[in-house]
Amino acid sequence: MSSPKVTDVVVTPVAVMDPPLLNASGVHQPYQLRAVIELHTDAGITGLGEAYGDDPTLANLRAAAPFLLGLDVFDLNALTRRVEGALVDGIRTEGLTELIGVSSREKSVAQTVAAFEVACYDAQGKATGLRVCDLLGGAVREAVPYSAYLFYRWAAHPEGAVPTGYPVDDWGGALEPGGIVAQARRMVAAYGFRSLKLKGGVFPPEAEAEAIAALREAFPDHPLRLDPNANWSVATAVRVAPRLEGLLEYLEDPTPGNPGMAQVARATSLPLATNMSVTSFAEIPEAAALGSVSVVLSDHHYWGGLRASQRLAGICETFGWGMSMHSNTHLGISLAAMTHLAAATPSLGYACDTHSPWQREDVVQPGALVWSQGSLAVPAAPGLGVELDRGALARLHRQYLDCGVRRRDDHAAMLLADPSWTRQAPRF
Amino acid sequence: MSSPKVTDVVVTPVAVMDPPLLNASGVHQPYQLRAVIELHTDAGITGLGEAYGDDPTLANLRAAAPFLLGLDVFDLNALTRRVEGALVDGIRTEGLTELIGVSSREKSVAQTVAAFEVACYDAQGKATGLRVCDLLGGAVREAVPYSAYLFYRWAAHPEGAVPTGYPVDDWGGALEPGGIVAQARRMVAAYGFRSLKLKGGVFPPEAEAEAIAALREAFPDHPLRLDPNANWSVATAVRVAPRLEGLLEYLEDPTPGNPGMAQVARATSLPLATNMSVTSFAEIPEAAALGSVSVVLSDHHYWGGLRASQRLAGICETFGWGMSMHSNTHLGISLAAMTHLAAATPSLGYACDTHSPWQREDVVQPGALVWSQGSLAVPAAPGLGVELDRGALARLHRQYLDCGVRRRDDHAAMLLADPSWTRQAPRF
Repeated sequence: MSSPKVTDVVVTPVAVMDPPLLNASGVHQPYQLRAVIELHTDAGITGLGEAYGDDPTLANLRAAAPFLLGLDVFDLNALTRRVEGALVDGIRTEGLTELIGVSSREKSVAQTVAAFEVACYDAQGKATGLRVCDLLGGAVREAVPYSAYLFYRWAAHPEGAVPTGYPVDDWGGALEPGGIVAQARRMVAAYGFRSLKLKGGVFPPEAEAEAIAALREAFPDHPLRLDPNANWSVATAVRVAPRLEGLLEYLEDPTPGNPGMAQVARATSLPLATNMSVTSFAEIPEAAALGSVSVVLSDHHYWGGLRASQRLAGICETFGWGMSMHSNTHLGISLAAMTHLAAATPSLGYACDTHSPWQREDVVQPGALVWSQGSLAVPAAPGLGVELDRGALARLHRQYLDCGVRRRDDHAAMLLADPSWTRQAPRF
Repeated sequence: MSSPKVTDVVVTPVAVMDPPLLNASGVHQPYQLRAVIELHTDAGITGLGEAYGDDPTLANLRAAAPFLLGLDVFDLNALTRRVEGALVDGIRTEGLTELIGVSSREKSVAQTVAAFEVACYDAQGKATGLRVCDLLGGAVREAVPYSAYLFYRWAAHPEGAVPTGYPVDDWGGALEPGGIVAQARRMVAAYGFRSLKLKGGVFPPEAEAEAIAALREAFPDHPLRLDPNANWSVATAVRVAPRLEGLLEYLEDPTPGNPGMAQVARATSLPLATNMSVTSFAEIPEAAALGSVSVVLSDHHYWGGLRASQRLAGICETFGWGMSMHSNTHLGISLAAMTHLAAATPSLGYACDTHSPWQREDVVQPGALVWSQGSLAVPAAPGLGVELDRGALARLHRQYLDCGVRRRDDHAAMLLADPSWTRQAPRF
């Protein structure tokens, strides 16, 4: 085998429809943005990757792209150096950081590396005939469990937020415990999920605790999680956590920052999980010193890729932390990457998060991603095991051009429905 | 490419001549034991590995070997599971642990996995045409700097310790600063080393500090290290360390254990390095909490292999620790593995340790391991890039059978010369 070298980099932003899912910041916009990365090589192989599709992310991806020409797809250390070199000036550090802590140059580099690294792994797999999970040390599970991702939501986006003809999905609204339970029942029936996660931080904590209690009653054997997205003060979290003990497998990001998380950790027997106070390697020593978390949600998109996520797994094992996986809205390329990573990471023992049930559009050809009993089978074909649907890519790129959304702003989306909405964190 | 599966595992113990190098435990025996591992596969490819060759190590290797049949050489997670399963009963936890801290089941598993993992990587490389460093993320350096490993030593082993005709090497004795400087001059002339390490813990610390001062005078620009192998008490280390400040790039294992190391660390500006108080992932949280070390010497042989060593590198980066590399007596297979690992690990910034200059015999064919200016060029051929010399292997296995040494015991070797020698740690 001769090692494939990059001959062309194509970054294509796409927009996919997204329902009005409520969260701590506001509400999901009608369109979520993703970027599809194609690394063409001199071996006639193309590696696929997927990233956020907001303007700052695109700027970084496009700034780095020319520096990747000639890159050996196995030389991931060179990929990092080239991205660091490319972004030395003019790096965009804003972006999706509202949900993953304070922005930094390191995080922007990590996000950019991650997008291309997945594409390199896909190309490595296609060149060798191996699956990405095999290149990551071998699958310890051939089916990766995911959790149902439950959201408080409206039935439809507010008028004025969507163009004429924007199709309303058929999930309906869910604003109280009964609606959440009904949503869970439908999701479990469709996917077979065996863990349930509720995105919280939307209503007063007592109301969300009631929803958890209702889920426990309806699903006595499903592990449950609640994620207030750091929208509770320490005092609120300390007050509410005890009534969630025995109900949750973990409480995710009740409050912002490691010092606050550490205070909450001392006040409850609940394991605290995070994808907000520990979102980069730089934040780990503080968490270790303070004892602020006991589960870290990995996300290859911002930790720096699949190798970096396995590095994180090693740190979690070393410090006795559990490991789970975070999800932002994603398409099939990222879902395949998440699945290969989880398959090849023994200590990733919790069911992973996924927005899959909320996704009505994709850029990959159907058939490769097969759900069964709440788990996704590891795709069997070499590399990531998914292929681009070029028609869908063109259509979703057109949708990107037409929709006008250029960065994620759940706050602005909420203001359309509620002009009195304020940015307040923590809100409760 | 179809992924090679293991069809046969051959473990061959060998003995190589070793000079009377002095250390904290006593003196090197006339023969050092190594084990050569051959993983034969259904692809007609053989992967090479190398381990300690003492009885406990051999027992573990041989207990695990039958469990490796059918193993896919890319499935390193399965390798770990199979070794864990094989060693569930009857694991030998003694071994080379005198120099790497307290023995444990985990360390024995890690050592056994490591030996086979290197052979799997060699087979992966031969199957794909890639070098091991390419499989580890790509070479960030094509030549890996090593340090000169200086030892107090006798000219010859004591009479009665060696068989008739055992050839004395031509290095002569070195028992005071002048002898150490002369040894360094010869080693630097022959290899071009740009860093110098003195194995200490042999003479009173003040005498060893004089040797360091003499090296500094003779080599004003070479970074220097001293390794007393934890043979100093905390009080001694606290007394001696200040006079080494400005002379050493790091002081290695002045005293045993992380609590003691932490006391010394607070008393000196010298960076403290270790391959004794941090020798497994289980010992890292204590070191992080106490601030006991600032440089960790990796060693794939006991950390669990090349992947585990990269995991360690990630932890070192995360906690702001430097990384160097430890050496025991080794042959060309291990030297190649060490070189590929160092080549592919950006943060391994210190020159690595090697016993190469003391080694007069090898099992690999000459020509693949090329020294220049104190660095070893990363072998260019696929896999590790070294091939077995079957004649040498047979001869060194014969030497193993004949020599009678079955485990390392520097204490017993010293008793032959000095019947009053006592086991005392720390000695100073």
